[in-house]
Amino acid sequence: MTAFDDLMTFQRETSALGQVAGRLGWDQETMMPKGAAPQRGEEKAAMAAILHARRCDPRVAEWLAAAEAPDPIGAAQLREIRRAYDRATKVPADLARALARTTTRAHGIWAQARADEDVAAFLPVLEEVVALRRQEAQALADDGDPYDALVEDYERATTGAQIAAIFDAMRPRLVALRAAVLERPAPKALDGSFDETRQMKLSRQLARAFGYDMHHGRVDKAVHPFSSGSGMDVRITTRTNPLDPFNCFYSTIHEVGHAAYEQNISRDFLLTPLGRGVSMGVHESQSRIYENQLGRSRAFTGWMYGQMREAFGDFGVEGPDAFYATVNTVHRGYIRTEADEVQYNLHVMLRFELEHALISGDLAVCDLEAAWNDRFEADFGYPVDKPSNGCLQDVHWSEGLFGYFPTYSLGNVYAGCLYQALRHAVPDLEDQLALGDTSGATGWLAENVQRHGGLYEPREVIARASGMEPGPEPLLDYLEAKFGALYGL
Amino acid sequence: MTAFDDLMTFQRETSALGQVAGRLGWDQETMMPKGAAPQRGEEKAAMAAILHARRCDPRVAEWLAAAEAPDPIGAAQLREIRRAYDRATKVPADLARALARTTTRAHGIWAQARADEDVAAFLPVLEEVVALRRQEAQALADDGDPYDALVEDYERATTGAQIAAIFDAMRPRLVALRAAVLERPAPKALDGSFDETRQMKLSRQLARAFGYDMHHGRVDKAVHPFSSGSGMDVRITTRTNPLDPFNCFYSTIHEVGHAAYEQNISRDFLLTPLGRGVSMGVHESQSRIYENQLGRSRAFTGWMYGQMREAFGDFGVEGPDAFYATVNTVHRGYIRTEADEVQYNLHVMLRFELEHALISGDLAVCDLEAAWNDRFEADFGYPVDKPSNGCLQDVHWSEGLFGYFPTYSLGNVYAGCLYQALRHAVPDLEDQLALGDTSGATGWLAENVQRHGGLYEPREVIARASGMEPGPEPLLDYLEAKFGALYGL
Repeated sequence: MTAFDDLMTFQRETSALGQVAGRLGWDQETMMPKGAAPQRGEEKAAMAAILHARRCDPRVAEWLAAAEAPDPIGAAQLREIRRAYDRATKVPADLARALARTTTRAHGIWAQARADEDVAAFLPVLEEVVALRRQEAQALADDGDPYDALVEDYERATTGAQIAAIFDAMRPRLVALRAAVLERPAPKALDGSFDETRQMKLSRQLARAFGYDMHHGRVDKAVHPFSSGSGMDVRITTRTNPLDPFNCFYSTIHEVGHAAYEQNISRDFLLTPLGRGVSMGVHESQSRIYENQLGRSRAFTGWMYGQMREAFGDFGVEGPDAFYATVNTVHRGYIRTEADEVQYNLHVMLRFELEHALISGDLAVCDLEAAWNDRFEADFGYPVDKPSNGCLQDVHWSEGLFGYFPTYSLGNVYAGCLYQALRHAVPDLEDQLALGDTSGATGWLAENVQRHGGLYEPREVIARASGMEPGPEPLLDYLEAKFGALYGL
Repeated sequence: MTAFDDLMTFQRETSALGQVAGRLGWDQETMMPKGAAPQRGEEKAAMAAILHARRCDPRVAEWLAAAEAPDPIGAAQLREIRRAYDRATKVPADLARALARTTTRAHGIWAQARADEDVAAFLPVLEEVVALRRQEAQALADDGDPYDALVEDYERATTGAQIAAIFDAMRPRLVALRAAVLERPAPKALDGSFDETRQMKLSRQLARAFGYDMHHGRVDKAVHPFSSGSGMDVRITTRTNPLDPFNCFYSTIHEVGHAAYEQNISRDFLLTPLGRGVSMGVHESQSRIYENQLGRSRAFTGWMYGQMREAFGDFGVEGPDAFYATVNTVHRGYIRTEADEVQYNLHVMLRFELEHALISGDLAVCDLEAAWNDRFEADFGYPVDKPSNGCLQDVHWSEGLFGYFPTYSLGNVYAGCLYQALRHAVPDLEDQLALGDTSGATGWLAENVQRHGGLYEPREVIARASGMEPGPEPLLDYLEAKFGALYGL
């Protein structure tokens, strides 16, 4: 056994333990008896302690010093192991403990403050979280930009400056599109009630239509839709609401995008550092292209209209063109997670700008609400009505997740690039989608993006697949064309 | 922090990890996508390696040497930690690995041999398993009887000689009862088909009727019924067969007996060595008293008859007396797991006698089949017709589980003692059961047996609850009275 082999054996076991820990989370949201919560807390803490000890294990440093990569893939494995080891060992244990303690407390305070519409109650603990994350970022960044060090956790090899350049180019065109669309009359909304058992049935049908492999996965109901696991066991959840079947269907398609990415990674990388989606942004590019460019296309919604008629009978929408308009309704609203394709990125860009400034020190926590409300009104055209619709709406900051938000929009930007390339690669894409056949599209994504797992850096995998340096123009062109046509602009 | 505190903290984390590993097993049998099996193997192996390392961790020896128990319960905790540590460290690592490897291989060979009705194909690897387990037993036993060392894993503080004394006293009365009953005409058998969804619904109703706490558990379907987990998360499975609803209902009640034991252990013992059922025998006493003395009683089956009529309409059994007879049918058969109350222990005693002789060296593996077939015909009155109905029927020996079988019958013996005491403690037991109310019985068992977890040794907890030294007479008296009346002897 060489040092490389020893290291990979150790890593493989760590990855397997990571899968076990992840499945505890899945179980908690889907299967766990309610009364088990306190015991589950201890179980999760015990697994976290085991995983943390392995990630900081001094033998990893020794193996890394002695290991020689047998080939380029081995070199990529070593690169990722080294990155993770540096990340795990650079932050002092005291600081890591303080962060864990403070974010746990902050989460509870945030939930209460949001329920009470009381920003002031949340700001003191948020200030503590920001201060601790800034300390952590400084420990990680050496002499670099602390915000970049935080982004690295979610979108490696990507800087705040790169993100800002992309977002600055997007804002004017998105604001103009949003303003033009919201002046036009809205399409007919869904009404009536949709049987939840039939929603789940159609939801599984959609998952299969998008290539989700039920032999290596399963679909269950949960409060929040999510995808969980890597490799041979990748499970998704969805939710049902009798008044809103699209929530169920498009949550499912979105999570299938995440899950298919994990399922389609080369089996050579199973339980290795390369055996997971490379970044949050590339992950989101898969979930969003499945959900939007494919799932909300005129062609696919035409097929889906027929499926819904079969499942629910006449549900009050007259024909596939009207259905396409209904599926793609742009509506005023405050909440990011409920936003349409046109406005979603405006929500994300707002958060990125504010958190970037919080971490750099250019924005004080006490000024956060005012900054949020100003930016919101400028970008959306109407004022925030209450904190739960404003700066208290998202859980992320209370959990210390700074650097995470921009990956949502990077995912959309990447999806725009991939979709442009996909249309060239699969000329009859619309004919296929019109029959409910996504295999041309999902096959191309599996081959060009998904199978590589963590082998290439995020921007590199997108550039190789799309044949272009990732930028926002393809996304913006797509949005302006789609919504310009839909809203007669 | 004292050494005692450090040790208990370490143990608590180990127990939590043990719960996680156990739940992987539950997931595999109920929820896991089929294609995940290879990855699951690696996940389980990684968890097993972590748990093994903790069980042999040299710090445990240091803490044990330095720890002082703060009270009698602390002393019992130390006793169990010491027992487990000695067990884990006495067996050389090479031998443990050889056992793991050989039993994995033996399991596959056994399954094929059983399918092929080919005893000779199984015997060579069984010989290896027996030799390795004998070596292990010698390592564990110091100068004592090796078989006792194996029993200790499942039924601590209990010897092969004690078991033999009990079983020898049981055999003549059971053989005589079996012979007399099988000469009488059999009651009417169930026929027709029973909707499986309704079986599951009634099964959950029965679980609740026996006090299963759904807030800390759940019922799912699996190929084999089992109970999994301790403390706040104890899940059971059952199975359905349209032709055999009793299999579903009595499997459920049996597993509820196991699960209720785990659920009702004092919360003071949560995630400690005392926080699990003390032994397989005491566990089986709970499952069997729930299933048989309570669940198959005239009083409870009277209530159950009404429930079945409600669920399935007229299913061809005329009245509660006929139903009681049908539920308690004694039938010829070869398979232990399908045996009735009268014959079940004859099956177990046969296996005990043979495995006791295999481990002591009094029986050679090559003579196993003949010994099985002779004993079977003597005790059951008819010859074995094929190996899958004989010495190849059970999985246990292929997995190296020697010393496990007798705990099934010890459980019945203990259940007999407990039932005698219970009838004195709850004089109106039958009136309660006739209303489907088991709370008098299950409450008494929770208070007198279950809540103690691992605090007392197996025989001690039964003696304290029943007020007698555990012996077979109460069970035999109960069986003779019940089946004598049913079969008009």
